[in-house]
Amino acid sequence: MINVGINGYGTIGRRVADAVAAQKDMKLVGATKVKPDYRARVAVQKGIPLYVPNQEVAAAFDRAGVPYAGDLSKLLSEVDVVVDATPELGAEYKPVFEKHGKKAIFQGGEEHELTGFSFVAQVNYTAAKGRKYVRVVSCNTTGLCRVLGAVDSGFGITKARAVLARRAADPDEVSKGPIDAIVPDPVSLPSHHGPDVQSVMKSLKITTMAIKVPVTHMHLHSLIATVRGRPTEEEVIGALESAPRVMLVDGKAGFKSTAQVIDWAREVGRPRNDVFEAVVWRDSVTVVDDEVYMFLGVHQEAIVTPENIDAIRAVASEVPAEESMRTTDATLGIRHPT
Amino acid sequence: MINVGINGYGTIGRRVADAVAAQKDMKLVGATKVKPDYRARVAVQKGIPLYVPNQEVAAAFDRAGVPYAGDLSKLLSEVDVVVDATPELGAEYKPVFEKHGKKAIFQGGEEHELTGFSFVAQVNYTAAKGRKYVRVVSCNTTGLCRVLGAVDSGFGITKARAVLARRAADPDEVSKGPIDAIVPDPVSLPSHHGPDVQSVMKSLKITTMAIKVPVTHMHLHSLIATVRGRPTEEEVIGALESAPRVMLVDGKAGFKSTAQVIDWAREVGRPRNDVFEAVVWRDSVTVVDDEVYMFLGVHQEAIVTPENIDAIRAVASEVPAEESMRTTDATLGIRHPT
Repeated sequence: MINVGINGYGTIGRRVADAVAAQKDMKLVGATKVKPDYRARVAVQKGIPLYVPNQEVAAAFDRAGVPYAGDLSKLLSEVDVVVDATPELGAEYKPVFEKHGKKAIFQGGEEHELTGFSFVAQVNYTAAKGRKYVRVVSCNTTGLCRVLGAVDSGFGITKARAVLARRAADPDEVSKGPIDAIVPDPVSLPSHHGPDVQSVMKSLKITTMAIKVPVTHMHLHSLIATVRGRPTEEEVIGALESAPRVMLVDGKAGFKSTAQVIDWAREVGRPRNDVFEAVVWRDSVTVVDDEVYMFLGVHQEAIVTPENIDAIRAVASEVPAEESMRTTDATLGIRHPT
Repeated sequence: MINVGINGYGTIGRRVADAVAAQKDMKLVGATKVKPDYRARVAVQKGIPLYVPNQEVAAAFDRAGVPYAGDLSKLLSEVDVVVDATPELGAEYKPVFEKHGKKAIFQGGEEHELTGFSFVAQVNYTAAKGRKYVRVVSCNTTGLCRVLGAVDSGFGITKARAVLARRAADPDEVSKGPIDAIVPDPVSLPSHHGPDVQSVMKSLKITTMAIKVPVTHMHLHSLIATVRGRPTEEEVIGALESAPRVMLVDGKAGFKSTAQVIDWAREVGRPRNDVFEAVVWRDSVTVVDDEVYMFLGVHQEAIVTPENIDAIRAVASEVPAEESMRTTDATLGIRHPT
């Protein structure tokens, strides 16, 4: 049994907490939280022990009447692995985890250098085995690695290019914009997403551009990959179908936009309408000469959830890659290719 | 003096009417309009004679008390050139123009085959000379031809790729969406924009993808062009600076998004905040190996206005290309490279 603590109960922490609780080989010890808000109350209702990072937060919890189980030190003393899901405070917390001698999983908001190892389960699970610190890459990088990894394995990418249309805000981030503008972000090219993909797929040649658009639900990538092989469109689709955590959807079946992907997740009863898969529009997969084109959707809040679970197993168990991914996928309701 | 009539007083027709009125070598005879709405009243206030396409419309104008000068036949009898700015009804009207023996300029919503000639002033003005029918291409195609034309002339494009993030609706189109989704449009690739560019730049190899996003002001293209020459970024910028109707803006100078480009147009007093130029973010121009990257903004309502004016001169005068473009630009307040 792997005892797991979560540091930070925000967008990612909440999801990883539920996913950890769903694993038979893991125990969710609890999660730290900095505000005694409605999310804290829901956590308490669900039976998730909350911990506080310091005395001020403890006092705020006391005032609000939200119960907590102890402080961060107490949480750390009871876990084997801590998942840091703070808003880019991982570098600050790493020495604390180190002092307690705990293994830690960090998120993509941190620099690669914090751990020296950036993780996407289907690319480098095995290389993470036994490591003390692992960084799960960001949502966009995870989506790119899953899909480009499948295309690269199948047909050899000589050059990849991606244009990322990024959601401007998560659904609960009411004070962010824009509301009527397209924002080149950054204006200076290329964007950081290419180098971040290379922190996982080290030999991949890739250049990325990113814009921000007024939506809340998903990112949408336009991918253009030059490949050595000359696959047919059916062969590219076949490679994506055999890759884990890639979901193919059809425009003709009603998936007209990112909105229908999220609506599908609501229909099938996914928790928080989470789409854990990299979503590729099957009818967008096109081959022109030696270039493969496709649209890729990334649910920014959810896609890294399975990677965090696998990262925990990679650093704290002997479970091999395929078995871990299969188990994770089964517990989260993700179709796993046979 | 070239007598000009406008068929359809909508997004494009209104702008071309004002631009025609601003030319010393043209006379705006009038414009047809199908609804006696506030736009019709403003036209009357501005002294633009309105014409009605049929008896029902005439009756509606009578009921609303909006004066008109006659019907389409009367308008056509008084013009040398008619600019068709109807919502893709050009094929229906062409026989009417033909019956009256009038030259006609059509818009990019029509098929290339309607005229057999697709027009972007700086690419093929001279070839349009003496033609009876010319099609001014759509806003996106115009922007792509201006910018890719400049890059191709300078450095030889072997393969261009563009991802178009399209505005979902014009500012006055209140019943269109989406409001919180990114729409691959079309899902099946490539989009029609590539072939449309090839209707002007016949030997250019180009593949395009397009998505629709919830903004009203401008389209934003992410361009990736493989070039034979190995230009520096400064050389690419130089080529764009010497091209007509391309405006370079700097993110560092406050042009953080499409919204600031429109705000700039308001500040400088452009009519209807129109941006007639193809807008390239200077700090986005990047060369990676043999590929040139940049962001291109296209004001969908305005960019084809100067092309319509030049198309009129190309079919109905002996004015050479450079002189026509220079005159058009001077009257519209567009910087023209010397």
